[in-house]
Amino acid sequence: MFDIKTELTTNPKEKPASEVLGFGHYFSDHMFVLDYTEGIGWHDARIVPYQPITLDPSAMIFHYGQSVFEGLKAYVTVDKQALLFRPEQNFRRLNRSNERLCIPTIDEELALEGLKQLVSVDREWIPSAPGTSLYIRPFIIATEPNLGVHPSKKYQFIIIMSPSGSYYKEGINPVKIMVEEQFVRAVKGGTGEAKTGGNYASALKGQEIASREGYAQTLWLDGKGNKNIEEVGSMNIFFKINGTVVTPALNGSILPGITRDSMLHVLKSKGVPVEERNISIDEVVEAYNNGTLEEVFGTGTAAVISPVGELKYLGDKMIINEGKIGEISQMLYETLTGIQYGFIEDTFGWTIRL
Amino acid sequence: MFDIKTELTTNPKEKPASEVLGFGHYFSDHMFVLDYTEGIGWHDARIVPYQPITLDPSAMIFHYGQSVFEGLKAYVTVDKQALLFRPEQNFRRLNRSNERLCIPTIDEELALEGLKQLVSVDREWIPSAPGTSLYIRPFIIATEPNLGVHPSKKYQFIIIMSPSGSYYKEGINPVKIMVEEQFVRAVKGGTGEAKTGGNYASALKGQEIASREGYAQTLWLDGKGNKNIEEVGSMNIFFKINGTVVTPALNGSILPGITRDSMLHVLKSKGVPVEERNISIDEVVEAYNNGTLEEVFGTGTAAVISPVGELKYLGDKMIINEGKIGEISQMLYETLTGIQYGFIEDTFGWTIRL
Ligand SMILES: Cc1ncc(COP(=O)(O)O)c(C=O)c1O
Ligand SMILES: Cc1ncc(COP(=O)(O)O)c(C=O)c1O
Repeated sequence: MFDIKTELTTNPKEKPASEVLGFGHYFSDHMFVLDYTEGIGWHDARIVPYQPITLDPSAMIFHYGQSVFEGLKAYVTVDKQALLFRPEQNFRRLNRSNERLCIPTIDEELALEGLKQLVSVDREWIPSAPGTSLYIRPFIIATEPNLGVHPSKKYQFIIIMSPSGSYYKEGINPVKIMVEEQFVRAVKGGTGEAKTGGNYASALKGQEIASREGYAQTLWLDGKGNKNIEEVGSMNIFFKINGTVVTPALNGSILPGITRDSMLHVLKSKGVPVEERNISIDEVVEAYNNGTLEEVFGTGTAAVISPVGELKYLGDKMIINEGKIGEISQMLYETLTGIQYGFIEDTFGWTIRL
Repeated sequence: MFDIKTELTTNPKEKPASEVLGFGHYFSDHMFVLDYTEGIGWHDARIVPYQPITLDPSAMIFHYGQSVFEGLKAYVTVDKQALLFRPEQNFRRLNRSNERLCIPTIDEELALEGLKQLVSVDREWIPSAPGTSLYIRPFIIATEPNLGVHPSKKYQFIIIMSPSGSYYKEGINPVKIMVEEQFVRAVKGGTGEAKTGGNYASALKGQEIASREGYAQTLWLDGKGNKNIEEVGSMNIFFKINGTVVTPALNGSILPGITRDSMLHVLKSKGVPVEERNISIDEVVEAYNNGTLEEVFGTGTAAVISPVGELKYLGDKMIINEGKIGEISQMLYETLTGIQYGFIEDTFGWTIRL
């Protein structure tokens, strides 16, 4: 149906042991590539040996940041099958990012087919130790060699894959998170809801400040009033207040996380009351003060769930659930990883087995 | 004093005729390169033949937008010398951008020396037809091959140069500019005052809408209240209202333009009243309605001055100075280009002759 040429490597790399994996250091033997040229469109889909990219120094990606990316994972199930989790959602979101960044949209079906073939070719690169997975990074870069500020006339869409270690080697440890007051990640009307490099570059400074003070991540407030809660570095954020789970509504400046969406479905299916709405940092502080802030957790592809044990705002430290993982966080973690590793039945139709 | 190795090309390119130049299409024979490695610092300054950059597909520039750049020009003066205009200001600004983007700062003196040597090596690439110049693009990209979101441990600082045609081939034509109401370029606390790729990527969408309606550029309002005027696509903006020249103050979300700064100095030296302060779009509309909006112009390295003949806001069109260039705009253009091409004495100490 799709014409995807495959050129296999003649020089396969050695696969690293699962203990040394970490995140984003090692890459599999092959990559998927698709080119765009104005007037021709996207063309020349192919799987080739993992190899460097060679670009003119004037290539637009080096100057004007026109890029988008995605992040998802392939898992080995208990019955030894390769499994993808909601990959079509990633390509749908990639296309929404494309629209914001003036990048021509891709054929989502072709991308999915390319991904499936790539994972099949590098099937042995999916690590199988508990908690490990193959992280998948689709991305698009502007490659036209030209210094004019305008949408590029050439792009490359590439998928690379990186075997990753277990996020929680010693059990799920809640993290400490710091509310950023000075720097802003995104604002309504900006690029916050797109997955584009500039958002991450802009977030580094806040992240640096947080790390220096011993915090794992930054909690971003909205750029307009510095009051409404947006999201954490690379996770969406949830608060359980007085029995109800609240998460910021998709207001245009936060990333519509696929884990976030999955959690909302799981919560609803279990009958837990959930609300997607604006939530201000003041409301969280108030709930903390009157003892109704029961759980705080981040959600994202990398960690699935990251319980927050401490939240710092304006010099004050809020210790949540005595710094331990909460019941809802635990249930969500088990449900989602259960579906992803195939030991819980996927009643949502989220998984694709290869 | 600085150890800069030079490797000359054995294969010089043909220089394009000045009529075909345009902007950012052609590049000179050499480039300056400086590497950064964590633990070593910036090292290995060199001038090499202009050549492609080869990076791993996981190089951070392709994913997280950690990059900064600059733009300045070299001119041939009436007495046939190569001249640089305030280049030290560009490297100072580059370092301020570096700080915001968590990129290690460079040695500004080394960068300036590298630039001078590069321009000398490619001296013949500075075009000499009236209004032409050699556009200079210093830039820094994050090159560490790693998908973790953190400041890169490796960078390249590169300077490339592009002979550019005259911005005003048929005399200075005022442009039409549209105020953007929906999209936002930058917000206080964000990266607006840094010269980083993400700001330009984020601005493409507004620019696309403006072009579609026949407007040359977008006028950006602040991200917090969508009321205060910030800047134009790649220019700072000035309003002459009732004899006083007003330009938005450097509030943290606009680029501190070097042309802007130069214009302020020229205006003060000529005794023209100037104000750097917040100015809202409402104030501009009011001045237009009561007949005191006398001139509007943008300032930037590319065009020096770009008079605005029409400004569109909320569906209403304001025609400024009957769509013609104003007296102050004309004076500023002549003064600055006079200094840059060496036919007016540089009483400000802004120029470096090589
Ligand atoms: C800024 C940001 N927010 C949220 C998320 C979570 O999104 P997802 O659940 O799709 O991984 C990410 C993730 O990868 C992110 O970069
Ligand atoms: C966003 C933006 N504002 C203003 C300017 C003008 O700055 P300068 O006068 O230093 O060229 C530029 C230009 O290059 C720019 O990109």
